[in-house]
Amino acid sequence: VAEVWIAGAGMTRFGKRVESLPDLMAEAARAALAEAGVERPSVIVVAAMNPEEFTGEGNYGSLVGTHLGFSRVPAIRVETATSSGVAAVYAGFAALAAGLHRSVLVVGGEKMTHVPTPRVSEIIGRSIDPHERTYGTTMPALAGLVTRAAMHRRGLTLREISQVAVKNHAHGARNPYAHFQQEVTLEAVMESRLVADPLRLFHCCPISDGAAALVLVAEPAPVRIAGIGQGADSIAVRYRADLTSFPATQAAAKAAYAMAGFGPERVEVAELHDAFAPFELISLEDLGLVPSGKAGRATLDGETALDGRLPVNPSGGLKARGHPLAATGIAQIVELCWQLRGMATGRQVSARVGLAQSIGGLATNNWVTLLEARR
Amino acid sequence: VAEVWIAGAGMTRFGKRVESLPDLMAEAARAALAEAGVERPSVIVVAAMNPEEFTGEGNYGSLVGTHLGFSRVPAIRVETATSSGVAAVYAGFAALAAGLHRSVLVVGGEKMTHVPTPRVSEIIGRSIDPHERTYGTTMPALAGLVTRAAMHRRGLTLREISQVAVKNHAHGARNPYAHFQQEVTLEAVMESRLVADPLRLFHCCPISDGAAALVLVAEPAPVRIAGIGQGADSIAVRYRADLTSFPATQAAAKAAYAMAGFGPERVEVAELHDAFAPFELISLEDLGLVPSGKAGRATLDGETALDGRLPVNPSGGLKARGHPLAATGIAQIVELCWQLRGMATGRQVSARVGLAQSIGGLATNNWVTLLEARR
Repeated sequence: VAEVWIAGAGMTRFGKRVESLPDLMAEAARAALAEAGVERPSVIVVAAMNPEEFTGEGNYGSLVGTHLGFSRVPAIRVETATSSGVAAVYAGFAALAAGLHRSVLVVGGEKMTHVPTPRVSEIIGRSIDPHERTYGTTMPALAGLVTRAAMHRRGLTLREISQVAVKNHAHGARNPYAHFQQEVTLEAVMESRLVADPLRLFHCCPISDGAAALVLVAEPAPVRIAGIGQGADSIAVRYRADLTSFPATQAAAKAAYAMAGFGPERVEVAELHDAFAPFELISLEDLGLVPSGKAGRATLDGETALDGRLPVNPSGGLKARGHPLAATGIAQIVELCWQLRGMATGRQVSARVGLAQSIGGLATNNWVTLLEARR
Repeated sequence: VAEVWIAGAGMTRFGKRVESLPDLMAEAARAALAEAGVERPSVIVVAAMNPEEFTGEGNYGSLVGTHLGFSRVPAIRVETATSSGVAAVYAGFAALAAGLHRSVLVVGGEKMTHVPTPRVSEIIGRSIDPHERTYGTTMPALAGLVTRAAMHRRGLTLREISQVAVKNHAHGARNPYAHFQQEVTLEAVMESRLVADPLRLFHCCPISDGAAALVLVAEPAPVRIAGIGQGADSIAVRYRADLTSFPATQAAAKAAYAMAGFGPERVEVAELHDAFAPFELISLEDLGLVPSGKAGRATLDGETALDGRLPVNPSGGLKARGHPLAATGIAQIVELCWQLRGMATGRQVSARVGLAQSIGGLATNNWVTLLEARR
């Protein structure tokens, strides 16, 4: 596979934003293009999970291309539910590696905070198996089920799970792009209101607006995409053999490590999909970053904190940076670019290799991306 | 660019179907996989323009993968409005040409006939520039505008435009997969009820259900994708210099011809996006298949009929085969595969090179694909 590099990275602050989604995407895209020194990309890949229902607008590739002033630049939209951002990175990666294009603008985002929460839940719920949805299942309800199973079978404790939120809020407090920029105590997390037993409000990521963008090129640039892989699993959760790990993450990791030619031992910083706090612990083990059964303990011991052995979610993660769906997978990679290049002011770690993991739906469409700083 | 081949092609009959969209996609996919002799593709690319609003279901890559019995096969969804099917072909092409996969199942479809027509119009209307939509613009209204301009500036006549519908219905009458399998007279077309002046009902494609699928591989197979290209134009029609040709088609054709290493002179059969009958005439000239200003005359003279110099829409086109949005771009390629392989019983033409053109939105996202039979 031909080499693909990241020449520019940009994102908006995540949170409750008054700007339109095209404006948010333009802000992120302009930052990435400026850093890359690319005036006009040869193709645009847009990620938005469901702009039609969130904003009433469609044909989003053309809409965003026109809004950016690139109405004659070909644009496509890519979607894999909540991991759509990385799917767009992958489509751009493939176009470059195939020699079809010279530079790709990848931009993803979502605008959600203007929509009433029950309607947001309904729209996101379209990612759930239709039969299971007839029982009133929501994404937090499924996450609660996974959490209960993980507590029962893998011995995860609520204290360990809650510490993920405490850590990620501490990181987010140092990130000017984060939705939440304040710390929370373990007590505050454990006493916040119940959302879906045993998950409480502070175990769950917020509803956010925002956008993120990358410029990919075929010539050497500061960061290389060393590996990228996708894994899949049944959309019907009832058909899964086990709820306490995500085979889609394991398969994505295997593919990404194989492409990169190295394994988890070289990863020095990671951005993981902590839409629900326990997912960070499950993912740490699925990715081989922490031995099986040790993620909770490692988190309590501070191994995954900014100053730990393996900083996880230095951005604040989905929990504190926020989760504007299709922006998230790209924002994880933006954060890693900044970390690998020494540009993550206030939350800088020391790393040359980073890993991003993104979860689509209830782990039906997962992606792992490995980034390496240019030598 | 590495070579990409089509090893299998399949589609459902288009029309008013009672089956679910996943069932329709499965029918098309199984036919394509069986022909290709591929038991399990290494990746799935799904095209659906707006399954969330048409069917209430999302996460469509995972949904379709699971429904096909391939829940562990990575799947992504690609969208470029009404040309989404070809965008999925392109994504699959890129994945193969980049060496990322060995076999790709591309499957696209739409289920629309169960939705009340005004709601269908609203959903499709999301492809229109939001500002222009505030004036009540619909896709047929914009097409009417284009048609009036083409009649005024390029001298197209209603008789020429109507003959496109007559020809394509005559072709559809020979295609067992077509939505409409009966001929219509010129009088019936010209006297059908007005939809958007000067377009009448029989100038417009129907609302259809259906799905189509291809299996792409990197090893030689019966048909090669010799070229594929995308062109774009402003989603805001008010910013276009001219309404009587589509720069997005011209750009897509230029890219596809460049990749193929040959031009329109080698094209022996074409499937064009006649969502509105005049678009076939505009497209013939945009693609260089007929000299500028001659498409209407050529059509009246029978040049584009099944037994003409250059058969156009032997399938019946969008007009008669039908237009289940994201199925259409793939179905055009399925028809060309059958034509190039001598499998188009009842409507077979003699051709080794075929061209498919697909229009997304009001010509904001157009694609041209060139196919060549294996020597």
